Amino acid sequence: MTGPIYLDHNATTPIAPEVLDAMLPYLQGLFGNPSSDHILGRQAHDAVETARSQVAGLIGAGTEEVIFTSGGTESNNLAIRGVAALATPERRRIVTSQVEHPATVGPCGVLEADGWKITRVPVTREGVVDAETAVAALGADVALVTLMRAQNETGALMPVSELATAARQAGIVVHSDAAQAVGKIEVNVDDLGVDLLSIAGHKLYAPKGVGALYVRAGTVLEPIVFGGGQERGLRPGTENVASIVGLGAAAALARSRVAGEAVRLRVLRDGFWQNLHGRIPTLVRHTPVGSSLPNTLAISFPGVLGKDVLAAADRVLASTGSACHSGVDTPAETLLAMGVAPDVALGAVRLSLGRTTSESELAAASDILAAAFETVSDR
Amino acid sequence: MTGPIYLDHNATTPIAPEVLDAMLPYLQGLFGNPSSDHILGRQAHDAVETARSQVAGLIGAGTEEVIFTSGGTESNNLAIRGVAALATPERRRIVTSQVEHPATVGPCGVLEADGWKITRVPVTREGVVDAETAVAALGADVALVTLMRAQNETGALMPVSELATAARQAGIVVHSDAAQAVGKIEVNVDDLGVDLLSIAGHKLYAPKGVGALYVRAGTVLEPIVFGGGQERGLRPGTENVASIVGLGAAAALARSRVAGEAVRLRVLRDGFWQNLHGRIPTLVRHTPVGSSLPNTLAISFPGVLGKDVLAAADRVLASTGSACHSGVDTPAETLLAMGVAPDVALGAVRLSLGRTTSESELAAASDILAAAFETVSDR
Repeated sequence: MTGPIYLDHNATTPIAPEVLDAMLPYLQGLFGNPSSDHILGRQAHDAVETARSQVAGLIGAGTEEVIFTSGGTESNNLAIRGVAALATPERRRIVTSQVEHPATVGPCGVLEADGWKITRVPVTREGVVDAETAVAALGADVALVTLMRAQNETGALMPVSELATAARQAGIVVHSDAAQAVGKIEVNVDDLGVDLLSIAGHKLYAPKGVGALYVRAGTVLEPIVFGGGQERGLRPGTENVASIVGLGAAAALARSRVAGEAVRLRVLRDGFWQNLHGRIPTLVRHTPVGSSLPNTLAISFPGVLGKDVLAAADRVLASTGSACHSGVDTPAETLLAMGVAPDVALGAVRLSLGRTTSESELAAASDILAAAFETVSDR
Repeated sequence: MTGPIYLDHNATTPIAPEVLDAMLPYLQGLFGNPSSDHILGRQAHDAVETARSQVAGLIGAGTEEVIFTSGGTESNNLAIRGVAALATPERRRIVTSQVEHPATVGPCGVLEADGWKITRVPVTREGVVDAETAVAALGADVALVTLMRAQNETGALMPVSELATAARQAGIVVHSDAAQAVGKIEVNVDDLGVDLLSIAGHKLYAPKGVGALYVRAGTVLEPIVFGGGQERGLRPGTENVASIVGLGAAAALARSRVAGEAVRLRVLRDGFWQNLHGRIPTLVRHTPVGSSLPNTLAISFPGVLGKDVLAAADRVLASTGSACHSGVDTPAETLLAMGVAPDVALGAVRLSLGRTTSESELAAASDILAAAFETVSDR
């Protein structure tokens, strides 16, 4: 085995073959505009609605509660700014965490510049928001809670349901960015108790450039893009039919596989950690030992830069942090928020497993990473 | 010949086979996230940049002046609201036309509700904005001119360059929605003199769900979506790599073909009109005889509903108006703005030709439409 070993599934996943197969007819003969009142239009419309029910089925939503978007970033923006635009003057505060994705940090920052208060709840050394601390941050002045379900860099799972219960009792709308969670662990909007939930196609073996926002019936949002009446006016623009069909197929596939894959990947991930930790006893683990995404292993190689280790391990494709931060030579904010020392944080590498990851790939990756660490340490 | 005759290319086009061929590798093995600092990420990044230069090449722009979006609607929203967000308090007016696409009407309406003044310049009976009238509407209180290059329902070409010259002298930013024009006629941002220009992939034989906004160097915009730093921060979110590659390939194809296709389609369209008009002398033509998109023929069948004619002509796939309005039983606003009587407007059908349209298809379509008109008239 000499090809690349892709361990960057939290950055993006390949499109599943089944997903591409579902998409291809809509990239070829079935090219109608869903708004067109003829056979090609109606076929496209029906395909979008089938996909909507598939996505709804994955997360336990009603079909009419799913809105298609261009991806996770747009979904988060629509949720956060869509709620904020309709908030009453008495509720101009958002409760969120210190370790959200830029797609949440961005819109919160815009609202902050506009006079909103943003309460960023800290995380523990495990990288998890403490539910009690978060609940204590709620109040009658809060319009929205936005808490990610799974942290993209560490895989830490957040106490969304605990916070949601308290928030909804206080009349606060609850949003969760579940871009990293959907397809990796079971996600159910009623179990979580959320009003809004973001999905990103390309984290889920569907294409880039498509996503969804779950909008609980009765939750009102202002759109962030204005035009035709598509997606109930919440997301106008000609529907991205082929990619929406792909997201639907990916959701159906995830629904049937997520439980089994979660077990398989957790076993592989834990074995991978034990192997690496056995070779490098000073390796630091950032992914919580308790509740985490089963596919994610965030670690720090001691005394070196994570990017140097990956450069020396060139068959292993992984990330030194969130893909959105790659190439920037500052420690990841998420790790600093966990109390990781800056020099340790600079040694971080995120290894994220996926559907095609095998035990033999991980055995090879362990060899390569251990050798790369030795090379870099010896310099 | 018994298959459908697709004459709805202004609603959406099929993906060109060359475009799908260009996309497929990025829907399969080359699936990296352009932000990832490894070989798969770099390949994806390079593919996006190649596509950027292809799109720039089609419209005579600099490569760095092209921003990828999720489509024409988003491009228009980003242009209009992006300029408005940074306008000085002295400039809170927009000059536009009465016949813009919903993707322009929408954001202008939102600004109007926010206190902006919107001057909607009327059109002539030919459906064209009169340049002198439009220039007279400019003023020191105007931040933005937004005028479509080609009207989606009638194919009328608008005097963008004449208006742009006057507007830019007055320090006004100029945007043109060229979603219907790009790929059908030659579009050059310097000839037009625009600062911002919207492109929709799916009108151009690229997929749905991707578009571009030309942003002239020095033109400043506020984003409408916030997150990572992609697309110079103007359009964050993981890039829709495969579809962007498709848009690039479609742009390269259009560049080599647009001049020849414009001639071919104009001849076909004019022959189609003569044939239909010969059979139905009371047929009304809405598409200007002078300056128009070469592929578009908007007509009204007298004394009947356009949708009834199309229902009786079921092999002919066309539209009774803009796809965004289809199914709504009110006369098209665009036709009313041209002074077309409401009952005549209800007889409207838009026939829009494309790259695969042949003379024999149009001969068959003429027969079918004439027979359908007779059937419906006899009821």
